[in-house]
Amino acid sequence: MIRRRLFTPGPVEVPWEVLETMSRPLIHHRTEEFRAIVRGATGRLQKVMRTKNPAVILTASGTGAMEAALVNLTKPGEKALVISIGKFSDRWRELANAYGLDVMVLETRWGDPMDPQRVEDAMKSNPGISTVFTAHSETSTGVLQDVKSFSRIAHDHGALMVVDGITSLCAHVVDTDNWQLDVVIGGSQKGFFTPPGISFLSISDAARERIERSRHPVYYFDLDKALKKYDDGDTPWTPAATLIIALDRALQMIEEEGLDNVIRRHTRNAKGVRLAAKALGLKLLASIPCNATTAVLPKEGMANALRARMEEGYGVKVAGGQGELKGKIIRLGHLGLYGETDMYTMISAPRGSTTSTLPVRVFPASAFST
Amino acid sequence: MIRRRLFTPGPVEVPWEVLETMSRPLIHHRTEEFRAIVRGATGRLQKVMRTKNPAVILTASGTGAMEAALVNLTKPGEKALVISIGKFSDRWRELANAYGLDVMVLETRWGDPMDPQRVEDAMKSNPGISTVFTAHSETSTGVLQDVKSFSRIAHDHGALMVVDGITSLCAHVVDTDNWQLDVVIGGSQKGFFTPPGISFLSISDAARERIERSRHPVYYFDLDKALKKYDDGDTPWTPAATLIIALDRALQMIEEEGLDNVIRRHTRNAKGVRLAAKALGLKLLASIPCNATTAVLPKEGMANALRARMEEGYGVKVAGGQGELKGKIIRLGHLGLYGETDMYTMISAPRGSTTSTLPVRVFPASAFST
Repeated sequence: MIRRRLFTPGPVEVPWEVLETMSRPLIHHRTEEFRAIVRGATGRLQKVMRTKNPAVILTASGTGAMEAALVNLTKPGEKALVISIGKFSDRWRELANAYGLDVMVLETRWGDPMDPQRVEDAMKSNPGISTVFTAHSETSTGVLQDVKSFSRIAHDHGALMVVDGITSLCAHVVDTDNWQLDVVIGGSQKGFFTPPGISFLSISDAARERIERSRHPVYYFDLDKALKKYDDGDTPWTPAATLIIALDRALQMIEEEGLDNVIRRHTRNAKGVRLAAKALGLKLLASIPCNATTAVLPKEGMANALRARMEEGYGVKVAGGQGELKGKIIRLGHLGLYGETDMYTMISAPRGSTTSTLPVRVFPASAFST
Repeated sequence: MIRRRLFTPGPVEVPWEVLETMSRPLIHHRTEEFRAIVRGATGRLQKVMRTKNPAVILTASGTGAMEAALVNLTKPGEKALVISIGKFSDRWRELANAYGLDVMVLETRWGDPMDPQRVEDAMKSNPGISTVFTAHSETSTGVLQDVKSFSRIAHDHGALMVVDGITSLCAHVVDTDNWQLDVVIGGSQKGFFTPPGISFLSISDAARERIERSRHPVYYFDLDKALKKYDDGDTPWTPAATLIIALDRALQMIEEEGLDNVIRRHTRNAKGVRLAAKALGLKLLASIPCNATTAVLPKEGMANALRARMEEGYGVKVAGGQGELKGKIIRLGHLGLYGETDMYTMISAPRGSTTSTLPVRVFPASAFST
């Protein structure tokens, strides 16, 4: 019997304190008791997002929240810029096409972030772009982007900035208000170590004005309806109550640890894993790595075999590559409530032996120092 | 300390056997282990729906599944008929308007079902209607409708039949294939005694053809994408894994009890509550009552006070009226895993005393016989 551990960049392991809340008797969602929980959760989400903007919770995966942002903030035919650096940021292109936007797409090699200068050039040579869409941390490649600069450029050109922060929230500073991010999107099963099923988005005043003049057909994802119920802690449709209660518990744990400490822990784990991976002879994919996941390149043709050995031999589940990186990379997850000892567990698995070689050997002394 | 009980027509009480599954370690959704659970759950859903059609699970409330049905099955400007007999069936009108359908609406007094003859007349005098939308059991009034006849009429005129079965599944026979229901929609927090957050819909071959030629913008609710992943037990987006696992546990319990017995139990509870309510001097709202909820009319102005007394004095939470029935009715819920003794608990609360009067007195001898 092998104890199974989850080290994927979402869903992440859900600690017992959060799991436990979901086995409590169900609370009806149209009660003051539940509304108070929602208000507590959204208040705590605002702190993680460093924003005074409302943080609306949706019963849908992160893709649903992305759709809600795009549908409510744009009009059909409107010009938009998508910064696509991997599978998840490219989802904005698919959404923009589905909703008939006039979309311009900037791309990089998978493994690199977008250079802000290219965004500046694109905005200059294409006047009239109303909204810029991208991801802060691109989960498919483990790359972090300079969304602060993107946002400054977007606003300089009169556009709004919409950021998928699904795997950057809790792992990095997401300074929503200071960076003027009009929408930041998050998901429960990532840095918030809660099961999947709910997502959330912060909405700036400028974004709210756009919502009021929205033209796409919209019903379930109508953010105007959601915002009208927001102050009361209410929702237009039946919410996934148990998941919201679980999320609130996780947010209380994040509050207790302190957001700065949470981010510091992610930074330390990510750095340690990168150094350990290098010591193991694994090349790193990301030129600017994020703190959510470390994408490594094993010898050609070996990625899937190595992943299978980690899972079958040691119970350590990590993720493979997606899209053009399928079968080529391994993504080692360190997003969520993981400590240094968990990183040892994960990174010792590829060694293929826990008896003959102490896993700690692969870590240089500096691996986990901040 | 009062033990709190939930007798609302959804969410309903979730038994421990189902709650317990959600405190287990999280399973990654992109694994054969999880896909096998999804296939098990959808197979069992098909049995409850009496259909060979695929039963697609969505991470969204029932409203999301309604939107998915309408968006995927119609084209902008297409003619549709909405049979609106209360707040929930009227949601089809709102959805049809949001998506720019050419919608005709048939209405009744809230408390009555639609007469099939009126549907026949409407279809005859309005050729070209492509889709008929309604609810089987209207939760806001506790009314059951003859969707079998509606469906026959719809198909006679070349239209498809889409049915919100959110509160009829498990409480009534929903004979999807024999009645030729093209789409039947359900929700986890109703007859399936699972927390809210997921919904599902069965999709006939004729509906599937429509989906392939769909014209509305669609992404998160794209049923074509969902159907392509369906056979593998996979989903286009991250699903609410814990809720699907919980639903599957509930479906196993339904299978164990046997669907016929489940429906018989609902029929018996509903009949008992109606007789008991009459014995208490409460008038019934529904001319054709459903087995999910019994809507009663207390003396004018007394509904909310009575409801508060039930909740504060006896821990029994029931629902009030919605829309035009706000403050006028009480809805006594008997949808879910409730037995005869639970009905005694619920119906004894309005008496206002558990010491001086044995609640059993209010039940005529015939109340719980089948």
